[in-house]
Amino acid sequence: MRKDVVMKALVFEGPGRTSWQDVPDPGIKDAADAVVRVDAVTICGTDLHIVKGDVPEVAPGTVLGHEAVGEVVEVGGDVRTVRPGDRVLVSCIAACGRCRFCRENRYGQCRGGGGWTLGHLIDGTQAEYVRVPFADLSVHPLPAGVTSEDAVLLADIFPTAYEVGVLNGRVGPGDTVVVVGAGPIGLAVVATAKLYSPGRIIAVDLAESRLEAARNVGADATVSAAEDPEALVADLTDGIGADVVVEAVGVPEAFEQCTRMVRPGGRVANVGVHGRPATLHLEDLWSKDVTITTGLVDTHSTPLLLRMMAAGRLPAASAMVTHRFELGQMEEAYDVFSRAAVTGALKVVLGGPRHDEITTAG
Amino acid sequence: MRKDVVMKALVFEGPGRTSWQDVPDPGIKDAADAVVRVDAVTICGTDLHIVKGDVPEVAPGTVLGHEAVGEVVEVGGDVRTVRPGDRVLVSCIAACGRCRFCRENRYGQCRGGGGWTLGHLIDGTQAEYVRVPFADLSVHPLPAGVTSEDAVLLADIFPTAYEVGVLNGRVGPGDTVVVVGAGPIGLAVVATAKLYSPGRIIAVDLAESRLEAARNVGADATVSAAEDPEALVADLTDGIGADVVVEAVGVPEAFEQCTRMVRPGGRVANVGVHGRPATLHLEDLWSKDVTITTGLVDTHSTPLLLRMMAAGRLPAASAMVTHRFELGQMEEAYDVFSRAAVTGALKVVLGGPRHDEITTAG
Repeated sequence: MRKDVVMKALVFEGPGRTSWQDVPDPGIKDAADAVVRVDAVTICGTDLHIVKGDVPEVAPGTVLGHEAVGEVVEVGGDVRTVRPGDRVLVSCIAACGRCRFCRENRYGQCRGGGGWTLGHLIDGTQAEYVRVPFADLSVHPLPAGVTSEDAVLLADIFPTAYEVGVLNGRVGPGDTVVVVGAGPIGLAVVATAKLYSPGRIIAVDLAESRLEAARNVGADATVSAAEDPEALVADLTDGIGADVVVEAVGVPEAFEQCTRMVRPGGRVANVGVHGRPATLHLEDLWSKDVTITTGLVDTHSTPLLLRMMAAGRLPAASAMVTHRFELGQMEEAYDVFSRAAVTGALKVVLGGPRHDEITTAG
Repeated sequence: MRKDVVMKALVFEGPGRTSWQDVPDPGIKDAADAVVRVDAVTICGTDLHIVKGDVPEVAPGTVLGHEAVGEVVEVGGDVRTVRPGDRVLVSCIAACGRCRFCRENRYGQCRGGGGWTLGHLIDGTQAEYVRVPFADLSVHPLPAGVTSEDAVLLADIFPTAYEVGVLNGRVGPGDTVVVVGAGPIGLAVVATAKLYSPGRIIAVDLAESRLEAARNVGADATVSAAEDPEALVADLTDGIGADVVVEAVGVPEAFEQCTRMVRPGGRVANVGVHGRPATLHLEDLWSKDVTITTGLVDTHSTPLLLRMMAAGRLPAASAMVTHRFELGQMEEAYDVFSRAAVTGALKVVLGGPRHDEITTAG
């Protein structure tokens, strides 16, 4: 019934070029698909990389975006867990559920056609409607009481921070945790690290506004990256170093600093998306009992995090969402988000016309 | 009674210079010390680094060596677990048993005066007698039936391979394990990885003699480093990569190759001693769910490995010991070991005059 209708979407037209334009309304292509009406959507730092041309596998003509909350409007014949009318979170990662990696809950590495595809290899969520493959494992019904704006942060930010930062870093009670980079991901690392009762969390960033946001979500201490975070960490840990250091920046210098702040036996969890190699100082590290992890989010924790959000155990979106827009203001939202150093943008959320919470809150 | 007597020992005299010479016989300096008569001793690749001058904290005048088996001849007043006449393994790592790291079994990082001190910060085992600090936690009584030659490989080689390679790499049933470098450590990784029933072990080295030794201790496949180990691993794993890759060489190129052979979700366990930094290709690895570990041996596994050796579950020393000498032939043994590419030396063992097993076996 909805096919051959035109909708609005943000289309990547090649490096440096995007436009909010009419595209065909997506329909069911596979019996495992769902189509979701987008009620809340956000922009990720990765989208900016794509627009710059840093992610060459994104073909011109692709609708961007991999985070959304909305209402299911249509499902394929094989979909069993959601039906039209359900309010769902669209995960940034889809899971075929059948391959070797999906069977290990390692959905980010899915070899059966899932993984990160939305706004990457197929049309994404920055649109009025989005087709979601493998819907049974790739959308999550929202618990009552979780707003669209809160939930949309669980499409990518929170599971990435929790799985790739907190779980990979094995944060535990009493640990000294250093989070380098207090953007949305770093802030979500701070917030989800708290679930394991660390001894103290130290956030590092250049922007005082981000350090303030870090304190608001639970950092015990903050230090400007322009000062001497390494000296502070040494001072707070009797010279031994931090138990866990999370890299949430994505540049070699930040990663290398993390390896200088970790204690013998400690963990460095890389969450940042890197475009260049780093230097690994094995001549210092070989004897230091250090564990370094990397990872793409699997979103296996999304149902858990939704329950935690519903129970009030995670910060409300208001702690991170600095700017709100109507869906049709997509290009303006990109502009504000891409000039974060000037605009102070942390996370921007856009709501569609039927997105009541956003409309009310905005 | 034994003080002020002269003994023979291998003394480091500065970069490039050692000599087998008369030095004062060691006595008890601290109530936790034991003095051990050396019956079997070996030379480690690290000793060669020291002789070259690569380990600047080793002061000229230091007796080298950190691996030995012998008989306790004297103990300090606080020693409770061994007494004169006991046949013991001298561990390469001493443990104060009281500091934060010792309480985590992380003896290699001991902050109470232990860690790697023998032949490094204090006089070592390449001598007729050696003083061992913190004797209660740093020497291990030999089980019946374990020869001195077998046991001496458990002073460093086997616990290093097992703890830093196999345990850090979390080898498990069915895993594909790649061991890069089939020197003594790499061979011991192969042998101890077998304890966890991996699916296959692939050993990589330049020397065919070492690859043959790897097959003898349990490698299922071997490949010359001069051919294309990466292609072989890809071929054997449907292009996915190995579950565990162990670096047992200690050069950046080998480490970097390990990171190219590991599967998503796999582990790279670095065992090699590195003198130079490596390049970590985070632009490829950030999304690959890789865990990289480094470590200095703790020797917490030494009692277990001694029991496994006694039970016949580890290869006999003969699988690795290529050359045997009397203790007084120390300089000749260094010469043979340092020219391993020519002499084919894997592990050399030297026996003192009262070392019956070596004398018999030699």
